Amino acid sequence: MPSISNKGLSMPESPIRKLVPFADAAKKRGIEVIHLNIGQPDIKTPQIALDAVKNNTITTLSYSKTEGSERYRSKLALYYQKHGIDVSAENILVTIGASEALAFVIGSIADTDNEIIIPEPFYANYNSFSVVFGVKVVPIVSKIETGFALPSIADFEKSITPKTKAILICNPNNPTGYLYSKEEIKQLALLVKKNDLFLIVDEVYREFVYDGKQHYSALKEENLEEHVIVIDSVSKRYSMCGARIGCIITKNEILRKTILKFMQARLSPPSYAQIAGEAALDTPQQYFDEVIAEYEIRRNTLIEGLNKIDGVKVTSPQGAFYCIVELPIKDSDTFAQWLLEHFNVNNETIMVAPAAGFYATKGLGKNQIRIAYVLERTILKKAIHILEQALKEYSLNEN
Amino acid sequence: MPSISNKGLSMPESPIRKLVPFADAAKKRGIEVIHLNIGQPDIKTPQIALDAVKNNTITTLSYSKTEGSERYRSKLALYYQKHGIDVSAENILVTIGASEALAFVIGSIADTDNEIIIPEPFYANYNSFSVVFGVKVVPIVSKIETGFALPSIADFEKSITPKTKAILICNPNNPTGYLYSKEEIKQLALLVKKNDLFLIVDEVYREFVYDGKQHYSALKEENLEEHVIVIDSVSKRYSMCGARIGCIITKNEILRKTILKFMQARLSPPSYAQIAGEAALDTPQQYFDEVIAEYEIRRNTLIEGLNKIDGVKVTSPQGAFYCIVELPIKDSDTFAQWLLEHFNVNNETIMVAPAAGFYATKGLGKNQIRIAYVLERTILKKAIHILEQALKEYSLNEN
Ligand SMILES: Cc1ncc(COP(=O)(O)O)c(C=O)c1O
Ligand SMILES: Cc1ncc(COP(=O)(O)O)c(C=O)c1O
Repeated sequence: MPSISNKGLSMPESPIRKLVPFADAAKKRGIEVIHLNIGQPDIKTPQIALDAVKNNTITTLSYSKTEGSERYRSKLALYYQKHGIDVSAENILVTIGASEALAFVIGSIADTDNEIIIPEPFYANYNSFSVVFGVKVVPIVSKIETGFALPSIADFEKSITPKTKAILICNPNNPTGYLYSKEEIKQLALLVKKNDLFLIVDEVYREFVYDGKQHYSALKEENLEEHVIVIDSVSKRYSMCGARIGCIITKNEILRKTILKFMQARLSPPSYAQIAGEAALDTPQQYFDEVIAEYEIRRNTLIEGLNKIDGVKVTSPQGAFYCIVELPIKDSDTFAQWLLEHFNVNNETIMVAPAAGFYATKGLGKNQIRIAYVLERTILKKAIHILEQALKEYSLNEN
Repeated sequence: MPSISNKGLSMPESPIRKLVPFADAAKKRGIEVIHLNIGQPDIKTPQIALDAVKNNTITTLSYSKTEGSERYRSKLALYYQKHGIDVSAENILVTIGASEALAFVIGSIADTDNEIIIPEPFYANYNSFSVVFGVKVVPIVSKIETGFALPSIADFEKSITPKTKAILICNPNNPTGYLYSKEEIKQLALLVKKNDLFLIVDEVYREFVYDGKQHYSALKEENLEEHVIVIDSVSKRYSMCGARIGCIITKNEILRKTILKFMQARLSPPSYAQIAGEAALDTPQQYFDEVIAEYEIRRNTLIEGLNKIDGVKVTSPQGAFYCIVELPIKDSDTFAQWLLEHFNVNNETIMVAPAAGFYATKGLGKNQIRIAYVLERTILKKAIHILEQALKEYSLNEN
């Protein structure tokens, strides 16, 4: 048969995917699997967005504008302005999820063998999109001991080479839940300015911030117009993952024109989803207040529970809805599989994401897992209990 | 400012895009512009698909399965079976339009500097997706004299090198309207088998076939399971361009597994659109009969009208809804711009697609335009009249 491309061969598999057959097999054996492994919120989508789609009056479902409908982009601009960010509709390009936004940005700024620096652990698909364009991810370790704060600027400087094109961070962070401070963003601003790099900030979790903290967007930095690229999405904010709508925000006009060429090739973002996205912008503040309160409680439940388990290390995340948990085990890949294959408490078990898949440096994260707290408290409590029992039994057997 | 990637710089702009400002300016001057330049049908989307979205019962709009919902893929398999094509749900991967399907296929089979052979003129974005992956398009000229039939197999053989990974055709063809015969497909089947290449067939216009002719799908070829990749889409079939749903069909399991890794990185296709796509599969046959009859009449109107204009050459297309028209002019880019800037008949003018953008070989197609007959007869008649008047006036001035 004709051969597959090298790019195709080196595309990584989703770090969770290989556990799916084991989860399916467990379900077949009558075991209920609690999914702590994916960031698919159980929260309801705002009614106003659901209704807008149900009440649409489309008769011919035509292509929309390549860069997103004018109306949606104008309303998006108002959203950012409301959050103290000075952008206009023309600074915004509507994409098919943050996923497509990431792909187009990487393709527009980096060529084969160029480098993008990313603090690890990071959202695994940053690597996938880099592989698509032959770009090399250069990781800088962030540590559980500091709650996964920004690595030192000296560490970044050591990693910058003539091939470096950008620094990419996710704020607040998936998978660590870390919320970068204004000071950290300002440090990065100086760094990218000095070294003439792009600063890509994935802000898809921008509104998921706890303990009364404030999110500081990189778009607020002045004199950084040519450097800053923000990635956003409706997926998590409005629990609309299935819409597939995101955006790229940048004041760099040459960059926007380049990205637009990638967008033209795929014609347009989905029309129904843009209707939902536009309507979602009118979601009442109460919805967010309730959602954030709910996540805060879930986080508290989870972190308190985890802290009570012997040998477990975790820091309290201040944003998004994930945390990295260090376990008293050697290999979380094997552990996660064992949980699905050989363990249950009253016919229930948990599925977790082994953290190695979020690191680019081989060997890191092997005793860590990522947990997404997108489930109700009572379920989270049960999950913690299962984890505790599992660790007891597992540590007796692990050699 | 930090520099754009070479890939970004070499991404082609849409061949029509540069005329858009001139069309906008004409509209501002009160001129009505008849759009012959884009393949956006005016046909209504089947009511059954529109209703399915309006009546959806989603409360949390979650990610769907990466490869498309099971139900949709199963129903799609039945659709192909009804058309005498033996495929199962597992052979089908649901994509975000044929656009994404093309990108994933090219990325999965070809690396930087690999080659894909495509008869020209061809759908311009084949080139864009190739640029994304650093792949080289090797064109083989098809000629208006033969109605844009398949170039000779000897021509293909001459173009095959160790770097060739695939032959890509569009059947029926955009921009020529040519319908490849069973014999032509069989010739290509032998050729790809002999040279161990993939055969990619873009069948997004598979149901738009006229004069009682039959479409012969490459999927019907036996013993070619490892080679054939078919690209499809709901965009044109159901006049649902804004849905953004397409698919890849291949029996090559290793290839499917590779493509699935690209799909995982972008998480899932849009959910609302899959509801529409699934429902559209129940569209009554009468809808298609009427649509095909309508396009046949439009085509007849257009071709008859064009044939009456002095110096115009066109052949009657047997599929899709485009044709390539040769005009008695030197440069259709200049002519198309002139039509928008300096010409009108009773305050109306036409916008056409200069054909050079559909050729990879520099210099070809300069006296050709592409016309999409996606408008009502009466408008087409008016458009032909405008073209005729324009050519009279233009040929007096062109030097
Ligand atoms: C950090 C981060 N960026 C981007 C994405 C992709 O989101 P989208 O659904 O908008 O493509 C995700 C999804 O989980 C994410 O966690
Ligand atoms: C030949 C051909 N292939 C693919 C496409 C892309 O279609 P989709 O809307 O499914 O992305 C088009 C759109 O016009 C086309 O003409």
